[in-house]
Amino acid sequence: MDLNRDNDAYRDAGVSRDAAETTVSFLSKIAKSTYDKNVVEGVGGFGAIYRLNNSPETLLVSSTDGVGTKSRISVALNEYEKLGHDVVNACVNDVLTTGADPLFFLDYIATGELVADIIARVGRGIGEACKISECSLIGGETAEMPGIYSNKDIEIVGFSVGVVSESNLLKSSSVNVGDIVLGLPSNGIHTNGFSLIRNKLNLDNDSSLLTKYFDELKCELGQALTIPHKPYHPLIKQVKRDIKSMAHITGGGISENLPRALPDGLAASIDLSSWDIPILFKLLQKLMEVDVNEMFKVFNMGLGMILIATSKGAINIQSILPEVIVIGEIQKRNGGEQVIFG
Amino acid sequence: MDLNRDNDAYRDAGVSRDAAETTVSFLSKIAKSTYDKNVVEGVGGFGAIYRLNNSPETLLVSSTDGVGTKSRISVALNEYEKLGHDVVNACVNDVLTTGADPLFFLDYIATGELVADIIARVGRGIGEACKISECSLIGGETAEMPGIYSNKDIEIVGFSVGVVSESNLLKSSSVNVGDIVLGLPSNGIHTNGFSLIRNKLNLDNDSSLLTKYFDELKCELGQALTIPHKPYHPLIKQVKRDIKSMAHITGGGISENLPRALPDGLAASIDLSSWDIPILFKLLQKLMEVDVNEMFKVFNMGLGMILIATSKGAINIQSILPEVIVIGEIQKRNGGEQVIFG
Repeated sequence: MDLNRDNDAYRDAGVSRDAAETTVSFLSKIAKSTYDKNVVEGVGGFGAIYRLNNSPETLLVSSTDGVGTKSRISVALNEYEKLGHDVVNACVNDVLTTGADPLFFLDYIATGELVADIIARVGRGIGEACKISECSLIGGETAEMPGIYSNKDIEIVGFSVGVVSESNLLKSSSVNVGDIVLGLPSNGIHTNGFSLIRNKLNLDNDSSLLTKYFDELKCELGQALTIPHKPYHPLIKQVKRDIKSMAHITGGGISENLPRALPDGLAASIDLSSWDIPILFKLLQKLMEVDVNEMFKVFNMGLGMILIATSKGAINIQSILPEVIVIGEIQKRNGGEQVIFG
Repeated sequence: MDLNRDNDAYRDAGVSRDAAETTVSFLSKIAKSTYDKNVVEGVGGFGAIYRLNNSPETLLVSSTDGVGTKSRISVALNEYEKLGHDVVNACVNDVLTTGADPLFFLDYIATGELVADIIARVGRGIGEACKISECSLIGGETAEMPGIYSNKDIEIVGFSVGVVSESNLLKSSSVNVGDIVLGLPSNGIHTNGFSLIRNKLNLDNDSSLLTKYFDELKCELGQALTIPHKPYHPLIKQVKRDIKSMAHITGGGISENLPRALPDGLAASIDLSSWDIPILFKLLQKLMEVDVNEMFKVFNMGLGMILIATSKGAINIQSILPEVIVIGEIQKRNGGEQVIFG
């Protein structure tokens, strides 16, 4: 199970880490008690992997995710289409990390009052994003729940299923010492860290900061915050053969997500000077008055997907996708952290 | 897309039918624009059907659903495990209607404050229900969204995938004049109609009725209302070979769901005297002061799943499942409704 990760700042914002960890551990135990022999990877990975009984080469990869409290900000700015893109990309990017191709997507949208125009706009965004990621939007549920959702609140949850053959499944065990760590730029803060932002910037009580123009952003803050989660499928599919392992950088940042793409005995040394942290993150750090370590624990800091490849594979990947940045190298783990920032 | 269906009483309760219909029609159009050649049945059916590219005999059937505002009542009565059963069964029963066997399930649970014990109890219910329906709980997301969910509100959404071969796919086109309509008893009101109940009985302002004992129920009202959605997989799997078509009776009742299991040119004549409407529905009708027609438009009225079979098939089904009731017969449609109550 995936949980919005936490730290001190996050706890102050009402998101609690200890409760999350206890819950994850308990839910994992429950989940494991239900597994049949076809479960290749259950809770804990980016995507859950299930082997179809009658075609052992067909692994189904599934993921569910919501847009979290980003919806509050996007709703305030009337950016419903963007929320549709967010929910698709948050799910599909998880599925991609296994090497799978996305197949189909289902959505769940709940509001206090069903306003046709709003649901249609979210749906339009979902449809556009499904086309970009080449997956079919085949079903969904729209629930009107008066009394549960107040004001203009909207809950948007997605489910995505992809497929990969056993021979193409990306495995952290394939990573070796000397492999190269590559970063793919993010579009912004994607769908994580919004509870922290809302709390630190007091946005629920005074949202005027969202429409304030910042010279360094060359736009209003709200415009920068609501840029949708980036779709990585159009990029990843071009370089898949050279990828050994992959991490989707969501809540918990690089330090919590990159280890999920590494074997226990290896670590990634990351050169912090190898990429420019985008202005938006620097501005948020200043506005929220948190230190850079806290920023790294919550946000993607400019890299939404991290790939691991051999040296040769890395060169191939960069030749096809010039935006890919070499950010580090794989080394032996000396008993400490699996991500070493230098 | 599935929407909580409506009528006058429901509209008064804050659930709007017109908005729902406009939205469904628009969302269907968007969805269709994303379909690839493998989409066998997209939005509109009980379960969406997707043919796996490399194994044409493998149709994946998926469904998503939430527990709706039933969560308000179950939370008030501290019945978290039951909500876990509800979400699994609401989804899996949709998947079953295609003839598919459930494979796996993912959950999404969102609250304002993550209380480990509560999430664990919901999770326990989900795990138990997955075991009963023989599907693996392989993933999920637990989101803490301070500010979006108030009080003790909890949103629980599920996503289920099953598989069926093309030759075993149930098709409404297989239904013929003279086929028998069979009802499978429900456990109660399952997960539909709760917004109406909450509104008509003013439960959000005064929940004392929930803990009132009713002689006719032999329990408190809240106990009867929170009985989980019935799992039909253990029953259906025993009689699958004799089922031609199947309808999951959810929001909209028999009159809106049974037609989804029928070809356009046929109708089902239903004998209302063939089964006893359970006491709970009669009590709700009296307490809410609505007429029986409105009850039939919102609730399952005692039948949670309806099967269609040949006369011989119906006899086989009844010999294996004595609780199955013959409730009607298939006849030519004379241009009117597809469900004729008599």
